[in-house]
Amino acid sequence: MAGLLGINDLQDHEPPKIGSLTLREPRITPPRALDQICSADPRDRVAHAYGKAFRDIARNLLGQIDNAPDVVARPATEGEVVDVLDWCADAGVAAIPFGGGSSVVGGIEARVGDDYAGAVSIDLTGIDRVLEVDAISLAARIQAGGLGPVIEEQLRPHGLTMRHYPQSFEFSSLGGWLATRAGGHFATVYTHIDDLTESIRAVTPVGISESRRLPGSGAGPSPDRMLLGSEGTLGIITEAWMRLQRRPRWRGTASVRFADFETGVRATRAISQSGLFPSNCRLLDETADKSSRQGAAGTWRSSFVRAPYTRDALIRMGLVVDTFETAVTWDRFDDLHRQVMTEARRVIDEVCGTGIVTCRFTHVYPDGPAPYFSVIAPGRWGDQAAQWDEVKAAVSEVVAGAGGTITHHHATGRDHRPWYDRQRPDVFAAAFRAAKAALDPSGVLNPGVLLDP
Amino acid sequence: MAGLLGINDLQDHEPPKIGSLTLREPRITPPRALDQICSADPRDRVAHAYGKAFRDIARNLLGQIDNAPDVVARPATEGEVVDVLDWCADAGVAAIPFGGGSSVVGGIEARVGDDYAGAVSIDLTGIDRVLEVDAISLAARIQAGGLGPVIEEQLRPHGLTMRHYPQSFEFSSLGGWLATRAGGHFATVYTHIDDLTESIRAVTPVGISESRRLPGSGAGPSPDRMLLGSEGTLGIITEAWMRLQRRPRWRGTASVRFADFETGVRATRAISQSGLFPSNCRLLDETADKSSRQGAAGTWRSSFVRAPYTRDALIRMGLVVDTFETAVTWDRFDDLHRQVMTEARRVIDEVCGTGIVTCRFTHVYPDGPAPYFSVIAPGRWGDQAAQWDEVKAAVSEVVAGAGGTITHHHATGRDHRPWYDRQRPDVFAAAFRAAKAALDPSGVLNPGVLLDP
Repeated sequence: MAGLLGINDLQDHEPPKIGSLTLREPRITPPRALDQICSADPRDRVAHAYGKAFRDIARNLLGQIDNAPDVVARPATEGEVVDVLDWCADAGVAAIPFGGGSSVVGGIEARVGDDYAGAVSIDLTGIDRVLEVDAISLAARIQAGGLGPVIEEQLRPHGLTMRHYPQSFEFSSLGGWLATRAGGHFATVYTHIDDLTESIRAVTPVGISESRRLPGSGAGPSPDRMLLGSEGTLGIITEAWMRLQRRPRWRGTASVRFADFETGVRATRAISQSGLFPSNCRLLDETADKSSRQGAAGTWRSSFVRAPYTRDALIRMGLVVDTFETAVTWDRFDDLHRQVMTEARRVIDEVCGTGIVTCRFTHVYPDGPAPYFSVIAPGRWGDQAAQWDEVKAAVSEVVAGAGGTITHHHATGRDHRPWYDRQRPDVFAAAFRAAKAALDPSGVLNPGVLLDP
Repeated sequence: MAGLLGINDLQDHEPPKIGSLTLREPRITPPRALDQICSADPRDRVAHAYGKAFRDIARNLLGQIDNAPDVVARPATEGEVVDVLDWCADAGVAAIPFGGGSSVVGGIEARVGDDYAGAVSIDLTGIDRVLEVDAISLAARIQAGGLGPVIEEQLRPHGLTMRHYPQSFEFSSLGGWLATRAGGHFATVYTHIDDLTESIRAVTPVGISESRRLPGSGAGPSPDRMLLGSEGTLGIITEAWMRLQRRPRWRGTASVRFADFETGVRATRAISQSGLFPSNCRLLDETADKSSRQGAAGTWRSSFVRAPYTRDALIRMGLVVDTFETAVTWDRFDDLHRQVMTEARRVIDEVCGTGIVTCRFTHVYPDGPAPYFSVIAPGRWGDQAAQWDEVKAAVSEVVAGAGGTITHHHATGRDHRPWYDRQRPDVFAAAFRAAKAALDPSGVLNPGVLLDP
């Protein structure tokens, strides 16, 4: 990577020791009945302070833990989720649902303003069981705190798999996938977790919501689709019936090299509009292809899973390393791509002196691709997060202006709010605000995400 | 059909003449500015009084037009839709969006209670143009009032098709499809209009909502999915960007006969879980197969399109002829099927003396089928609607109790409310009611549909 960037003084920085960190004193004390499942231990609070965005890792490395939750709650049952939420609503405490902690958009960071008595991170990973398997309909009732491997391990003896593999698979939970409309790595037809969802059960401050298991329905707007993408602002998802597949017995892959990116784009469009629905269909530009070959030996799959580890190592060496992603219709893609590449290179040069930008497609739909951009550039140690924020703001403006969504599968969180707010129709915002007020009258659920606190 | 039912005194009843009908005097007068697009002509009012449910046709034949709208408005532009809605909100007049008028669930009937000054049926079929075609992304911007054939006729010169064929195709509109989450006749993958929707534009009492054209997005709950299935209660859809396909060049079909229905069900499940995604995959039970062969010569496609015409003729002969439909997971299908067939036969015998019930699958998903039941029985002239209401209530209880949805693609309207209300999570109802109050503060949009007025 040093060679690619033409720099030769990279230096590894150790993460700070836990004892060296200064955390604000906890502002709240859980009620006695919740003592057993609550912790104010600094290690717990730090581990629940940030997600896995570049700016989270960079701030962690500097020991800048500004918004650690006051308390971490670890409910082991849905009843305990209800109890924690009741406490939050009564005491005016912000309730931040926490699954695997892999948000890259500030979705789990207790950046909630000063109007709250404090903040509780509600860690759901203790609620992680596959409760029922329906081998006839190929579906299972699964508790929402299960991380990817924990769920798949329980499905394997049944010869079944959810087959949903976001890059965060190891460190993200079913509830997180549902709440953020996660995209798996399969590129066509059933791409988002939405497509795999039969029904959802969630705890809200006004009661428990549970939809009926259905393969399809036309009975009014879908209750599940209200919770899909709600990012913890309407309720805490506790379980869901999810569609499964039999474990694949055959796998076929092929790689094709094109003379240039534009030809590759046209070929990818042809495939996506052919009705053939390959499980995967990815396109890498020349630089993405080169850096992916250098980053990891073996298949793209191992490189895909290892990429975040590589990234963390690069951040420790002072690099600015992050990604941004969107989706746009085919007719606008060439334009968006040209504008984004130009602006990204310009702002990276301005902010970091030099750097690399790559583009690949992670998903392709008949009407458009989901392009994914990666940036690697030398950073100034201590300023990396601020440097990235500047790059991110500039490219987000271009993405929005060129007709793309501010996120295809990373979610909105707190970090995408300025562009999300402009993308979302005002009328929908009004409806969503009213729905939120009805379900969360004291406004304690993940304040600042999707809506102002 | 007389032979099938063992009756031989069928007699055709002519529809009543328009002049013989007694309509309530119009209770409202449109403002001067809307004079040009409004009509209180009895013919217009009668034509907009009911949908195309069995009970609508039966009541029409008896001349029972109890809830005719006071006025029919025919906006020719979106601006005129805004003006009509402003009038309704100001004057406390119920606003009933009307596309092709093919609702079979009382969705367009001005059965709104006495708290409204009157009711306006807003006929959108004057707003029916394909405004833009994007041949790269395979999508088009289409006005919502276009009926199926009107839209397809405009797409044909481009070599494109929306390829969405509900049985009501000839007499239903894009806006109606979107507002009711219509199902086309294709049985796998892209079954509902939801799947074909890129973005929606709608007029609400608090402003115009327009989402961004996107092939996919993970930015919060989808604004489009709030309007999909909203059945005219949140706003009036005026246009949408819809996904298209190139016109098919090949077509292959095959029919297979099974020894019994159960074996056919297992085979259909195997196909639906195979990942092969055939465009169509229908299963008919023995009686459905027999009556479909007698009902129409030629392919199932022509029989599918002609079925409603045949039905209308049978209603004129005094028969009780209607359908009900649901979706359920495979594990519960056998049970639901047995219970529904038993109860349907019992109640039909009780109410009509004799009759036929058939079952077919209209759509199949990996996790369950959408079974569709047809009933034909002799009726008592003048009592047919009441007879059917009794049958429908009984079978709906069984469908709900056996875990099915009250509707897979017919929508909720006013007629499915009792079962819809129980199916919908209370928490979702609270959120939806709040969203509706935010967008339609005076509650004039299609009162009684999905929510109480």
